[in-house]
Amino acid sequence: MTKRKIINDPVYDGFLSIEDPVILQVIEHPYFQRQRRIKQLGLTYLVYPGAMHTRFSHMLGALNLMKRALETLKQKGVVITDEECRGAKLAILLHDIGHGPFSHTSERVLVDVPHEEITLKMMQRINEEMGGALDTAIAIFSNTYHKHFLHQLVSSQLDMDRLDYLGRDSFFTGVSEGIVGTDRIISMLNVHDDELVVDEKGIYSVEKFIISRRLMYWQVYMHKTVIAADQLLLSILRRAKELNLSTFNFQITAFDLDRFAEVDDDDIMVAVKRWQHADDEILSTLCRNLVNRRLPAIRISCEPFRDVESDYFHGTGELHNRSYDFNDQEIKVLYKDGRCLPISEASDQLDRHFLEKQVTKYYYYKPK
Amino acid sequence: MTKRKIINDPVYDGFLSIEDPVILQVIEHPYFQRQRRIKQLGLTYLVYPGAMHTRFSHMLGALNLMKRALETLKQKGVVITDEECRGAKLAILLHDIGHGPFSHTSERVLVDVPHEEITLKMMQRINEEMGGALDTAIAIFSNTYHKHFLHQLVSSQLDMDRLDYLGRDSFFTGVSEGIVGTDRIISMLNVHDDELVVDEKGIYSVEKFIISRRLMYWQVYMHKTVIAADQLLLSILRRAKELNLSTFNFQITAFDLDRFAEVDDDDIMVAVKRWQHADDEILSTLCRNLVNRRLPAIRISCEPFRDVESDYFHGTGELHNRSYDFNDQEIKVLYKDGRCLPISEASDQLDRHFLEKQVTKYYYYKPK
Amino acid sequence: MTKRKIINDPVYDGFLSIEDPVILQVIEHPYFQRQRRIKQLGLTYLVYPGAMHTRFSHMLGALNLMKRALETLKQKGVVITDEECRGAKLAILLHDIGHGPFSHTSERVLVDVPHEEITLKMMQRINEEMGGALDTAIAIFSNTYHKHFLHQLVSSQLDMDRLDYLGRDSFFTGVSEGIVGTDRIISMLNVHDDELVVDEKGIYSVEKFIISRRLMYWQVYMHKTVIAADQLLLSILRRAKELNLSTFNFQITAFDLDRFAEVDDDDIMVAVKRWQHADDEILSTLCRNLVNRRLPAIRISCEPFRDVESDYFHGTGELHNRSYDFNDQEIKVLYKDGRCLPISEASDQLDRHFLEKQVTKYYYYKPK
Amino acid sequence: MTKRKIINDPVYDGFLSIEDPVILQVIEHPYFQRQRRIKQLGLTYLVYPGAMHTRFSHMLGALNLMKRALETLKQKGVVITDEECRGAKLAILLHDIGHGPFSHTSERVLVDVPHEEITLKMMQRINEEMGGALDTAIAIFSNTYHKHFLHQLVSSQLDMDRLDYLGRDSFFTGVSEGIVGTDRIISMLNVHDDELVVDEKGIYSVEKFIISRRLMYWQVYMHKTVIAADQLLLSILRRAKELNLSTFNFQITAFDLDRFAEVDDDDIMVAVKRWQHADDEILSTLCRNLVNRRLPAIRISCEPFRDVESDYFHGTGELHNRSYDFNDQEIKVLYKDGRCLPISEASDQLDRHFLEKQVTKYYYYKPK
Repeated sequence: MTKRKIINDPVYDGFLSIEDPVILQVIEHPYFQRQRRIKQLGLTYLVYPGAMHTRFSHMLGALNLMKRALETLKQKGVVITDEECRGAKLAILLHDIGHGPFSHTSERVLVDVPHEEITLKMMQRINEEMGGALDTAIAIFSNTYHKHFLHQLVSSQLDMDRLDYLGRDSFFTGVSEGIVGTDRIISMLNVHDDELVVDEKGIYSVEKFIISRRLMYWQVYMHKTVIAADQLLLSILRRAKELNLSTFNFQITAFDLDRFAEVDDDDIMVAVKRWQHADDEILSTLCRNLVNRRLPAIRISCEPFRDVESDYFHGTGELHNRSYDFNDQEIKVLYKDGRCLPISEASDQLDRHFLEKQVTKYYYYKPK
Repeated sequence: MTKRKIINDPVYDGFLSIEDPVILQVIEHPYFQRQRRIKQLGLTYLVYPGAMHTRFSHMLGALNLMKRALETLKQKGVVITDEECRGAKLAILLHDIGHGPFSHTSERVLVDVPHEEITLKMMQRINEEMGGALDTAIAIFSNTYHKHFLHQLVSSQLDMDRLDYLGRDSFFTGVSEGIVGTDRIISMLNVHDDELVVDEKGIYSVEKFIISRRLMYWQVYMHKTVIAADQLLLSILRRAKELNLSTFNFQITAFDLDRFAEVDDDDIMVAVKRWQHADDEILSTLCRNLVNRRLPAIRISCEPFRDVESDYFHGTGELHNRSYDFNDQEIKVLYKDGRCLPISEASDQLDRHFLEKQVTKYYYYKPK
Repeated sequence: MTKRKIINDPVYDGFLSIEDPVILQVIEHPYFQRQRRIKQLGLTYLVYPGAMHTRFSHMLGALNLMKRALETLKQKGVVITDEECRGAKLAILLHDIGHGPFSHTSERVLVDVPHEEITLKMMQRINEEMGGALDTAIAIFSNTYHKHFLHQLVSSQLDMDRLDYLGRDSFFTGVSEGIVGTDRIISMLNVHDDELVVDEKGIYSVEKFIISRRLMYWQVYMHKTVIAADQLLLSILRRAKELNLSTFNFQITAFDLDRFAEVDDDDIMVAVKRWQHADDEILSTLCRNLVNRRLPAIRISCEPFRDVESDYFHGTGELHNRSYDFNDQEIKVLYKDGRCLPISEASDQLDRHFLEKQVTKYYYYKPK
Repeated sequence: MTKRKIINDPVYDGFLSIEDPVILQVIEHPYFQRQRRIKQLGLTYLVYPGAMHTRFSHMLGALNLMKRALETLKQKGVVITDEECRGAKLAILLHDIGHGPFSHTSERVLVDVPHEEITLKMMQRINEEMGGALDTAIAIFSNTYHKHFLHQLVSSQLDMDRLDYLGRDSFFTGVSEGIVGTDRIISMLNVHDDELVVDEKGIYSVEKFIISRRLMYWQVYMHKTVIAADQLLLSILRRAKELNLSTFNFQITAFDLDRFAEVDDDDIMVAVKRWQHADDEILSTLCRNLVNRRLPAIRISCEPFRDVESDYFHGTGELHNRSYDFNDQEIKVLYKDGRCLPISEASDQLDRHFLEKQVTKYYYYKPK
């Protein structure tokens, strides 16, 4: 009798059933289990208390969507072999495994290795341990596999990663604005000339997806209090580094994968709590502020802030938001008559003017 | 203009609005903020990955339900003063504040002070700092306040604590079996002879509540893999204590509230990760098992296990579940004609035979 | 390119995709389309305004669950041919097609042919028109097919019909008490010795299902105001029949399938509106009462009502509710060690005492 | 003891509690109860089988939102008397009471009285019967009441009508694209210079609302198959009128309120079924097509169709959709610093270019 694992997922109102022994083995790997201890949205829980969900749950959610997407495509007659199915699933499961704790905030301070590079290293290490079982997955991930659409399922403007995280972040924050018709979008996926496309009927769902993503940016990802908390953590990590107190600094020259894999959100927060009692008053004050959620005041403006202080307690920055990325490959719509148009032409409403528009805002934070 | 805080809560599909400056001040207190770093369900996330929700979110949820319950009762003509409203809200907000990390597991090992005692100490400390603003809350919490039903809203078989945690744990685990008609139960609450009762029309909702609670016990709270994980953590804490490695042991003789308040889930998990590299092989093996989720195998039986090993890797125990507690005060139903009957008499189906039935199961765990 | 129909279903938070041309043809048949005009819960919308859902949507929902159940069973190694899959789907789709309007209320008054008989007649008629495409479906429906478990998926204590209607009725009434973990139950289905069983892990879900069904009985199906409305309609139909005003009476001797198929909820309600202006004062009063929702007062008691009036405006009756039916085949649980026990033995809590208990209540209605 | 009515509403995951005897009396009025027999979305259920919800449930939902909006505004210090609260609630409850069956389709054919006029007549009639209890409601509805914002809650670009129907139609169709953060929008409402405005923090919710509305237009309200069904019904009603078969034609000259109030969806559908057997072949064919859901084929184009047939079976038309109406009063945003800007200036993304854009499409239908 084959082993079968059922994992509950509140987001999709059901659960994920996994039978493939290779996928089960990857999930049991310490590098993957580590993601249970890394929150998907870092310090966002200081604003949205429900947002404690982990990268682990996001990765399983993306796997769930990948399963459904592959089934849909096969039903529509797209040829995908069993090995390719497994490869695409493993690729989405591991595509972000190299992220460190609070990585959107801390990446440049703690780790001078880009996370994409660590991801690839970790995938290769697991592949070695598993005798090459991830060869196809790595090819799909690295976009060297000959069927391009498989890579697009993992990484494109309409990939399973984004579909899952928008829905998941919306669910756990309680921001219903971000709800996406995931099932519908997936059922509308198709392949045309080796490209992932959306059937004509799915055009409004794609419009909704683009809009939801934009709203989630302002309402959650760039929520001003989240930015304030991030800046506070950043100041702490910088100060600790200057004082040589931090033990979390990883350098590209002697990057130790196993040591890196032992560091997660918990270590950062325990250090912050310890540094509340540091001799350095700047550090101890910053740390007490974060632990007790006394966050900086932050102002947002359409104009850059000039002639303002910048130190551990004050600072400025920019926020960018674009509904859609023209540099990336455009999302394409497949019509019944065989035509295939980019969404910027196919949509009545989300035209180039709308999609190209990039909003930039400026922030300035200081002690309350 | 008064300060007003709006907090999103995915569970109640909406949010909590707080205007009372005293309540806002209590929420900002470090003792309260600390609950952001204590998970409501301890290691349950190793089985239900979504169950990362914190005591902080549960406390706010219980406050939300208390607000609605008080409004309902006032609409039905029950006299409750503004001070009593505030007191009841603060009492529910703080009623569990003394819990330590993983406290269902670790209480006896880490802390030899009962959590109820710590809760009261913390409430008194905050009360001192706030010039007596919590006097009524403490009286309600301690059941010395003359209106008994206010205490019952905080602690009874149908209190706001249970109503919130059943719904919340069900939401985040994704176990829909636990969904309770919270709104309906609250709308059916009433007061009769200074006792919290349920209007006649609410009888099926109460039955459902009792059944849901029972099912959540077996499906979540006493899920065998959760028990296995708890036992593993317990062995680790015991071994570390024996080896004098742990710094988390709190004794009643010299209990330090502020030091206690600095310890949370993160510290335990960081210590467990560190002890993976301990010299003691028992400790390091146990810790590696927990970090990488290599949990003990566990068997459940209706008969006690006899003649089995018991050490850091093996052990036995009992699980109890009773739908309903006759020792506690019974839930009472108020009829339109003025009669007031305990649910065990009012319900056709959940009769004494059913409600008195206590199920005991036995478990034995050992390495896989 | 094959035709493919996607139908939105709010209940399962997604939609149903149908590709099989035979199933699509059956759905387009006038006998099936007619179910769009028959409400699943009759007059229940007078109590729960959301309960306007139709037999049509229930049938599609049951088809959806059947699809999932068949997939689950096949994944577990149960052999089911393509023809058997289609047969089981068609059987569930058509298993209630013979119901007339308000049939729980009106069956004995309007139609003296049992609805099971009409269902079979309609299936046979469609089968003829489609050249025998429903042969397997009819065999499964009539329980003459050699694989017994296929019939059990259509009709048993755990069939797709009940699973769908409990969830659907709960959804549209807004009575959250009835929510069933449908996905989980389906994923736990299995086949043992040609019998539909539930895997050991699903035992709590089945308990929940039995309890939910019981609560839905009292809260919805036998809600006293619904009973009052039903009795009012019954009095109207009886009076109209006596007065030879009704044109809806179908007799077994000369049963005309096509004429029967043209009668639906709308005809009944239009007649009731017309009869508001009838010469007969009894009839016109009854009709005005129903149209304007002036329902009889109804009292429920544990004792029979004696010495009370009985006429068009007054009457008595009994209500029965049993969580579970021992006369029917018991729900069976399959253990990992191969044992297979009835739920009444497998469940700790829902023992024989609980499951055998039948609750009878008595009602008496009279003008308000 | 006061009468109190609790009505379940699946949309808001809870229920509506009504205590005001005047409101209860209005709900019991035959003109109001009649709305139980008029579907909110006409023939849309032929595309979305769940969309059977009635005007009755929409009116109660809008009442529910009005209650919450009034509470929010009062909490923010806006002065609203009890009589004004009742008036605003009655106004929203009755604001659409004059609609006939399938009124978006049939208005010009069946009734030559505009529905706004009938609504006012019905409100006045009920007001007479209730001794003037609706005086304030009628003033608010007619926009003659001195507090303008009360009218805006009933009728404006952000009124309780739209908020409810978007959420409700989305719920019952299962089109998650239309989900609006209703609770959040309502909590952001405010009054500034006697105008209904939205607090600064609510800007993204309003953007989402505008977008959702637009998407619901194309996905539901102007779904091409719904248009095809509407055109079919229109042809039927026109043909029946020509043949003098229809008894549903109401003329402004001798408008009979009570007779009008007896006509609902059921009458139309029963007539259509009867006309299946009419002598006129055009009429009987059209009717059989509708009853059995054999809808016309319909094509949508950005260019008008020229030189195409137009008769009972063929025809053309236009569809318009604008996210937002500049002719109507603009939605205004209130900033913390006291400024008040129209959304077209306040929103980064939904600028004039976007909001002014009107999409027109053309359709042509013909027999399949």
